[in-house]
Amino acid sequence: MVGGGEGAFIGAVHRMAAALDGEIELVCGAFSADAERSQRSGAALYLDARRVYDSYTHMMAAEAALPATERMQFVAIVTPNNLHFPVAEAALRAGFHVLSDKPATLDLAQSLELRSLLRETGLLYGLTHTYAGYPLVKEARARVATGELGTLRKIVVEYPQGWLADNQEAQDNKQAAWRLDPAQAGVSSCMGDIGVHAANLAEYVSGLQIIQLCSDLTSFVPGRTLDDDGAVLLRFNNGAKGLLHASQVCVGEENALSLRVYGDKGGLAWTQQEPNTLWLKTNDRPAQMLRTGGAYLGSLASLNTRTPMGHPEGYLEAFANLYCAFAEQIRAYELGETPGERGQDCPGIEAAIRGMAFIELAVAASNSEQKWHTFSTQLSNEE
Amino acid sequence: MVGGGEGAFIGAVHRMAAALDGEIELVCGAFSADAERSQRSGAALYLDARRVYDSYTHMMAAEAALPATERMQFVAIVTPNNLHFPVAEAALRAGFHVLSDKPATLDLAQSLELRSLLRETGLLYGLTHTYAGYPLVKEARARVATGELGTLRKIVVEYPQGWLADNQEAQDNKQAAWRLDPAQAGVSSCMGDIGVHAANLAEYVSGLQIIQLCSDLTSFVPGRTLDDDGAVLLRFNNGAKGLLHASQVCVGEENALSLRVYGDKGGLAWTQQEPNTLWLKTNDRPAQMLRTGGAYLGSLASLNTRTPMGHPEGYLEAFANLYCAFAEQIRAYELGETPGERGQDCPGIEAAIRGMAFIELAVAASNSEQKWHTFSTQLSNEE
Amino acid sequence: MVGGGEGAFIGAVHRMAAALDGEIELVCGAFSADAERSQRSGAALYLDARRVYDSYTHMMAAEAALPATERMQFVAIVTPNNLHFPVAEAALRAGFHVLSDKPATLDLAQSLELRSLLRETGLLYGLTHTYAGYPLVKEARARVATGELGTLRKIVVEYPQGWLADNQEAQDNKQAAWRLDPAQAGVSSCMGDIGVHAANLAEYVSGLQIIQLCSDLTSFVPGRTLDDDGAVLLRFNNGAKGLLHASQVCVGEENALSLRVYGDKGGLAWTQQEPNTLWLKTNDRPAQMLRTGGAYLGSLASLNTRTPMGHPEGYLEAFANLYCAFAEQIRAYELGETPGERGQDCPGIEAAIRGMAFIELAVAASNSEQKWHTFSTQLSNEE
Amino acid sequence: MVGGGEGAFIGAVHRMAAALDGEIELVCGAFSADAERSQRSGAALYLDARRVYDSYTHMMAAEAALPATERMQFVAIVTPNNLHFPVAEAALRAGFHVLSDKPATLDLAQSLELRSLLRETGLLYGLTHTYAGYPLVKEARARVATGELGTLRKIVVEYPQGWLADNQEAQDNKQAAWRLDPAQAGVSSCMGDIGVHAANLAEYVSGLQIIQLCSDLTSFVPGRTLDDDGAVLLRFNNGAKGLLHASQVCVGEENALSLRVYGDKGGLAWTQQEPNTLWLKTNDRPAQMLRTGGAYLGSLASLNTRTPMGHPEGYLEAFANLYCAFAEQIRAYELGETPGERGQDCPGIEAAIRGMAFIELAVAASNSEQKWHTFSTQLSNEE
Repeated sequence: MVGGGEGAFIGAVHRMAAALDGEIELVCGAFSADAERSQRSGAALYLDARRVYDSYTHMMAAEAALPATERMQFVAIVTPNNLHFPVAEAALRAGFHVLSDKPATLDLAQSLELRSLLRETGLLYGLTHTYAGYPLVKEARARVATGELGTLRKIVVEYPQGWLADNQEAQDNKQAAWRLDPAQAGVSSCMGDIGVHAANLAEYVSGLQIIQLCSDLTSFVPGRTLDDDGAVLLRFNNGAKGLLHASQVCVGEENALSLRVYGDKGGLAWTQQEPNTLWLKTNDRPAQMLRTGGAYLGSLASLNTRTPMGHPEGYLEAFANLYCAFAEQIRAYELGETPGERGQDCPGIEAAIRGMAFIELAVAASNSEQKWHTFSTQLSNEE
Repeated sequence: MVGGGEGAFIGAVHRMAAALDGEIELVCGAFSADAERSQRSGAALYLDARRVYDSYTHMMAAEAALPATERMQFVAIVTPNNLHFPVAEAALRAGFHVLSDKPATLDLAQSLELRSLLRETGLLYGLTHTYAGYPLVKEARARVATGELGTLRKIVVEYPQGWLADNQEAQDNKQAAWRLDPAQAGVSSCMGDIGVHAANLAEYVSGLQIIQLCSDLTSFVPGRTLDDDGAVLLRFNNGAKGLLHASQVCVGEENALSLRVYGDKGGLAWTQQEPNTLWLKTNDRPAQMLRTGGAYLGSLASLNTRTPMGHPEGYLEAFANLYCAFAEQIRAYELGETPGERGQDCPGIEAAIRGMAFIELAVAASNSEQKWHTFSTQLSNEE
Repeated sequence: MVGGGEGAFIGAVHRMAAALDGEIELVCGAFSADAERSQRSGAALYLDARRVYDSYTHMMAAEAALPATERMQFVAIVTPNNLHFPVAEAALRAGFHVLSDKPATLDLAQSLELRSLLRETGLLYGLTHTYAGYPLVKEARARVATGELGTLRKIVVEYPQGWLADNQEAQDNKQAAWRLDPAQAGVSSCMGDIGVHAANLAEYVSGLQIIQLCSDLTSFVPGRTLDDDGAVLLRFNNGAKGLLHASQVCVGEENALSLRVYGDKGGLAWTQQEPNTLWLKTNDRPAQMLRTGGAYLGSLASLNTRTPMGHPEGYLEAFANLYCAFAEQIRAYELGETPGERGQDCPGIEAAIRGMAFIELAVAASNSEQKWHTFSTQLSNEE
Repeated sequence: MVGGGEGAFIGAVHRMAAALDGEIELVCGAFSADAERSQRSGAALYLDARRVYDSYTHMMAAEAALPATERMQFVAIVTPNNLHFPVAEAALRAGFHVLSDKPATLDLAQSLELRSLLRETGLLYGLTHTYAGYPLVKEARARVATGELGTLRKIVVEYPQGWLADNQEAQDNKQAAWRLDPAQAGVSSCMGDIGVHAANLAEYVSGLQIIQLCSDLTSFVPGRTLDDDGAVLLRFNNGAKGLLHASQVCVGEENALSLRVYGDKGGLAWTQQEPNTLWLKTNDRPAQMLRTGGAYLGSLASLNTRTPMGHPEGYLEAFANLYCAFAEQIRAYELGETPGERGQDCPGIEAAIRGMAFIELAVAASNSEQKWHTFSTQLSNEE
């Protein structure tokens, strides 16, 4: 693990998610650039002090030098955004698979470079778009894929939060500080931190791609150079229209990601704060409430559920599902096999590139008087 | 009453709303241009056959000829949009106050002309933006007005419906047919029928005015010339941003109007399908659930509530509140007095004009490659 | 109308319910035993002063003396409980049908006597168990009747309120005062005022009869002689078990009547504060959310709905449904016909008797050390 | 770990809960009495084959023979009920602390004996009443303790499930089979499996003790000797009244544990299927919705929360909280210290005894014609 020392939020989340199913063991880490802090963090995690490093470059070198059966199998990157690419690059060059927090890199160019590196090394890459880990999000995707909703027409995805409604970044809130610092966060705060989750969720569930957008981003809190709010009109590659709204200044909102997808036969709705319920609706029959653990759910939803109906699973379980999928990819890789359905179902480099392209285009479009902005066709899988 | 014969939806709603409180009595009507149908409708309503007319022009003339104590006191207009203005004009010219269904007229020009007529005659005009009639919508407005939410930053208003997801207009659904016919509905179906309610709700509660918009309207169902869906980015006169989404093709949605307003101190949320709950949220205290009938509510909410907490009031009660307010205006008018708080709280000609301007600008902006479109300053109260 | 003068709650509710559909007109009233107050109340309702009476006996006599086409057609009784029987008796003896607020009478004996009077006079009697008026309660009953839930096993009905958690009766709250006064309310406050609604709802929806009960009633607030809270174990005539809980001291609860019914194939749930939703559940399929106005609903639900889906109907509409049903009974009576489905669906004298028996037995059982108490078989329809 | 081999439900839950926070490592197990199956289970968990045992007696002996730094520190018991006591006894006699699934033992006598053993050995005992592990259940307890609700009057606790509505036990459902087998489950299925959770939750949150009860248990599904449903009237030691309802045959219900507590100043409500919300209500102010992670929550709620507001925590996190508390107890024990607030907050032997007494009395009371049944005073802490 790189990053995630004392006081970090997402590092602890990654560790719990990795530990939950007993399939992954934390064996080493470079938790901080401050050697002493890194050691303290490692000690608190019961790690062998020799495998707690003061830099990721040292870690890559030292671990690569260990016997194959002892060394780490992959690197989890949980640093601020600006380090995602250099750490991933170092890991890949040292022969390690990479599981990275989002957004993938500091900018789109780095993501494209990362794709080249992955093609070069043949190693694995996973991106923790957490919300794709929820069982009912997987069910939603499956229902769309079967055509149950008909041809998709309209997608509404929202991600309001309220925690940055005042200048937390000036009040010793480290989580706020780096997210609002262009050097660490990139060109966007709101779109980069949460809008990108929303865009990924819309594409993951719909199976569609955003091809055009029109956006209006705002920095409401004085002193900020990055956006803390934004609304984006979307157009998808099948002709569907969409709406993406994300904010860090919607006072009183917690982490209110939600998705609605409408086709010409049916609609669905899911909301992250009550993740164990998925709505399927038509015009002429009663709405159906699908629940995590239901015997009527598809295979991916079932494979990603740990407890019976009515035993709520949450954010950490969703996160753990991504770790399980990535672990399955690694096992298959080592056996020279194709991973199973669950293993294949983990956001990877294409999601990484699309996310970075979304962020950059949303920012550019907001600064433009032109209404519609089109994604470059160079983003597609074929080079 | 003009319009609202057999089989009409909104006519029956107006009649129930008017009857609920025992303050208003239906005394005459031109329910249909088909004389026989008008008589049948009137008979079903226990009206004196002599006061059931075959045209609104006949009605105005005949009623105006009755002694002052016998004639009707105001005209309720419940026809398709294209008749709103001519009927209102005829009523005003005959000396009758007008309570009209929305949207006010077929186009903006008619609304401006209506304003001139009202200034000329000094008569009263009310517009049934039903949702402004709910007690907790009034409470929301009151809370914003006191500054409890701080400076407003963001407004999200949605109005998804699903009933026009297929071509109902070709299936003998009269409600669908006229709404999708430009001759009867005007330049818009979705924005004209429901988007205008959403825009009014946002302005009513926030006390702000939309000054710029960017829109993307769609006709999803083949064969339609008018929009059945749309998303609109909004900018308000205090610098707040907004988002309006309305649709008639969101399969499975009923009448899901909802509003969220966020300021720098607090946020609020209300949804029409559970109208007796209003949420007030901050970042640092538990969210508060306000309920219709609560002793802690302000005067307008209380004046517009009929039963104790937990006895749900609904759409008809909200509608009846507009009738009560208009009745109070008439009483005050007749006494030469200023109506009380409740009487003043009824959408009137300014809401009518703003609504028509919104519809026209949303359509124009959707057809344009230019991003932002600005409302004419001529709309303001001062000519 | 008898009762319901200035400041009364349920009188105004009855008037709005009666007025809503334009089928019933209030023509006379004895609103208070205080002649002046009665006149003031009548004037506020725009009644002819000659038909505003200072006592119900005067009203019965005077109205009966009017020509048949002018006199009132039925009496609505909205007094405290102790007057329900004497007024009903006077009305029936004067030849008027009766629509009475609940509970039917002051004690069971009066209800049995009322049944005799009805048989004697052949007149009509309706009892406003409001909650049976909701469209989805009717749908629930219909679904049970078709066997969709299988054999019923378990019924849970609750009715918590909080408004009497302190001694409101000593604080000039008239609504509280008479409900807690044995002379006006009878042997029970909580069971008599709301428990009886809950019992009726359980029997109405299930189509079953309670045959045994075990109860524990309490007077929590010092100084009260009547119960303000109670829990009752139920046994039904098909072997199903049940649970009824009602309270006036559950602080923070509004009017939280709810019902759950479980059979061996399915379950249903409905709650009065969100009356437009009915849940149908099975073990192996997604739960279904039925909504007022849904095209999939049965005839009684549809006949008792006024607006399309998503336009919430509430308490007053439910109440109005009882008035409509009773009006239909009267029309059929006058034509010598059998009322239609809707007209037949109004609680009558049998519900009245069962309700009074429930109240008396719940109180008796609570005072007993014996566990189970059995309803007298004399209550049944056959004499 | 004893029990929890392949296909078991609760064993896997315990393992995930133990692993989540990286504080506890599974080091050995007797997963099945079938040696081969136990080994297969251990291998799947990456355990050293030498520490996978074919019986708990072997495990206790072998582990006790290991050096102190290598041997296990405590035993987690996840077998059917009949083995809880013998395994606990063996563990304690071998010097190991015990964390046991509920209900504590097969009957009350065993629980009392267990208490003696604990006093004798001085070792630690924890009981996994999962629902006491939720942060907002802890907050509810804290709010009651501060007197915010005033003097408690009424407690309603429910636990409906539907999964045993047909004879699953005859359909190769192992989870069903042992729960309905008196030899493995004890005198009760419904009360023993879930009613006891409900009773514990009521006492945990209220800080009160049930002193009397009246019960009506049922076996709805033909062929069962144990109850699959029950309702229990409760009386608490401060004079409060209560109602407990649990069922395994409420078709369509998942795991719908919920609790409502009302005092003379306020009420609270919590439901397990939406565990991150706690309601606090009064009569004169808006209801407050408390949310997991809120800065306004007390210390125990905060200590038992892993992620920020809006990142839902669920059943496994609640379970893990019990493991964390027990781990803290062990650390304190080994240091000869008193555990901190979190460590002390784990159900122990007193909860075990009260639970077994509740089960036995509920069954006895149901079989009796006597209404009220009183708990023995011998259950109290003082012998």
